[in-house]
Amino acid sequence: MATGRTHRPATRSRGIPEATVARLPLYLRALTALSERSVPTVSSEELATAAGVNSAKLRKDFSYLGSYGTRGVGYDVEYLVYQISRELGLTQDWPVVIVGIGNLGAALANYGGFASRGFRVAALIDADPAMAGKPVAGLPVRHTDELEAIISDNGVSIGVIATPAGAAQQVCDRLVAAGVTSILNFAPTVLSVPEGVDVRKVDLSIELQILAFHEQRKAGEDSASAAATASAARSGAGGVRSSASRKGPDGDVPAVMPA
Amino acid sequence: MATGRTHRPATRSRGIPEATVARLPLYLRALTALSERSVPTVSSEELATAAGVNSAKLRKDFSYLGSYGTRGVGYDVEYLVYQISRELGLTQDWPVVIVGIGNLGAALANYGGFASRGFRVAALIDADPAMAGKPVAGLPVRHTDELEAIISDNGVSIGVIATPAGAAQQVCDRLVAAGVTSILNFAPTVLSVPEGVDVRKVDLSIELQILAFHEQRKAGEDSASAAATASAARSGAGGVRSSASRKGPDGDVPAVMPA
Repeated sequence: MATGRTHRPATRSRGIPEATVARLPLYLRALTALSERSVPTVSSEELATAAGVNSAKLRKDFSYLGSYGTRGVGYDVEYLVYQISRELGLTQDWPVVIVGIGNLGAALANYGGFASRGFRVAALIDADPAMAGKPVAGLPVRHTDELEAIISDNGVSIGVIATPAGAAQQVCDRLVAAGVTSILNFAPTVLSVPEGVDVRKVDLSIELQILAFHEQRKAGEDSASAAATASAARSGAGGVRSSASRKGPDGDVPAVMPA
Repeated sequence: MATGRTHRPATRSRGIPEATVARLPLYLRALTALSERSVPTVSSEELATAAGVNSAKLRKDFSYLGSYGTRGVGYDVEYLVYQISRELGLTQDWPVVIVGIGNLGAALANYGGFASRGFRVAALIDADPAMAGKPVAGLPVRHTDELEAIISDNGVSIGVIATPAGAAQQVCDRLVAAGVTSILNFAPTVLSVPEGVDVRKVDLSIELQILAFHEQRKAGEDSASAAATASAARSGAGGVRSSASRKGPDGDVPAVMPA
């Protein structure tokens, strides 16, 4: 084992903490927005605010990429987009299959955000024979019978499951048996996979939960603020504004704000 | 201002760091899975693994909730579900409207994960007159003309935007003018909102990006491993296994792994 290890080339990815990996897409999202507005450089503070991360953590994260910026100038936006994309593996083509072409599967098939990040929808697969051949997002839906052949023919390593909960584990097993090693699971169920296969589950309600927290706080502040204003009016002082927000320059609170 | 501040009651929410708030839904997701399996108690280590957070951070987070667990027993699963739900504001009813009932809007309308977290879909709204009255997920689609009345009649403070990018800002402006103070944005565009309104943007490709990082690393390891195995075979040593995974007990890597 030790012998083996010494023979392994040190890949660039090695040594980047998992938490940093989870933040790279957030930086990339903020940088892409800057790039679309043709902003050439960005300070670590500006980028940290836009990504919802503190700037010391951002600088630490970027040091793993070997990216240190230039004092007084900041980071080159385009170069940083390239560096992060390369680190995440987005500069290569990732064929993905989407299994389960109901509303969600069709929405994912039409989702522009995949293609712009190097993810190419290689095939759409559904168990309903009536769906077979029907075009969705410009691709003919294929029947589940063809799943193994599709994976193999297209060299697919990433599968997206958008089936009902009851079908998800069986689909997952077939994807894994056919050679898929990463699963993005939209089905509301927990999947079992063998060692070496990564599963990430998307919970569309997580963002709503964070909004609810802030709504609850705002409601508390409004009543507190109303009470304070009434009291301030009595004491002759000025009113009280609702608390400052914690937003980026465009008012967009990032989806994830790791410590 | 200072006068006002002293009159504000200290709400429970005050003092919880934003990063802790962002992790609460992850704990809640892991705890709900335990609850569904009727697991009565959980250690901080087990729960931290399931949520993808280190256990010291988890204990710190829970200390903000006033929840310390019992030495040798751990945390009471049901009580912790209740505490976190209460903290996030999920024990109250949150009526939400979904605007834009294409595939994505329809998928969101059918998404069971909202209702189970206290989010009630009060109305589905679409700009297409042909959609008006059509039932989706058991609700008749309402026309955009009715947007303001719907918000007001239902006391809606959270709006979900699932329109095409080009329509999103206008819909957002109308929602905000009608009194909505939290926006969950699925449209692939950056929204401008006034101070005091929270926007969270969902990027469905973020999870795929993290999977791509791991795929790239696995590919690097496979070739390194193959080289090492060949080399080990030459030197008479054993083969090299692919690296250990970083998974929770069910193989589910959580969507977000803050530091």
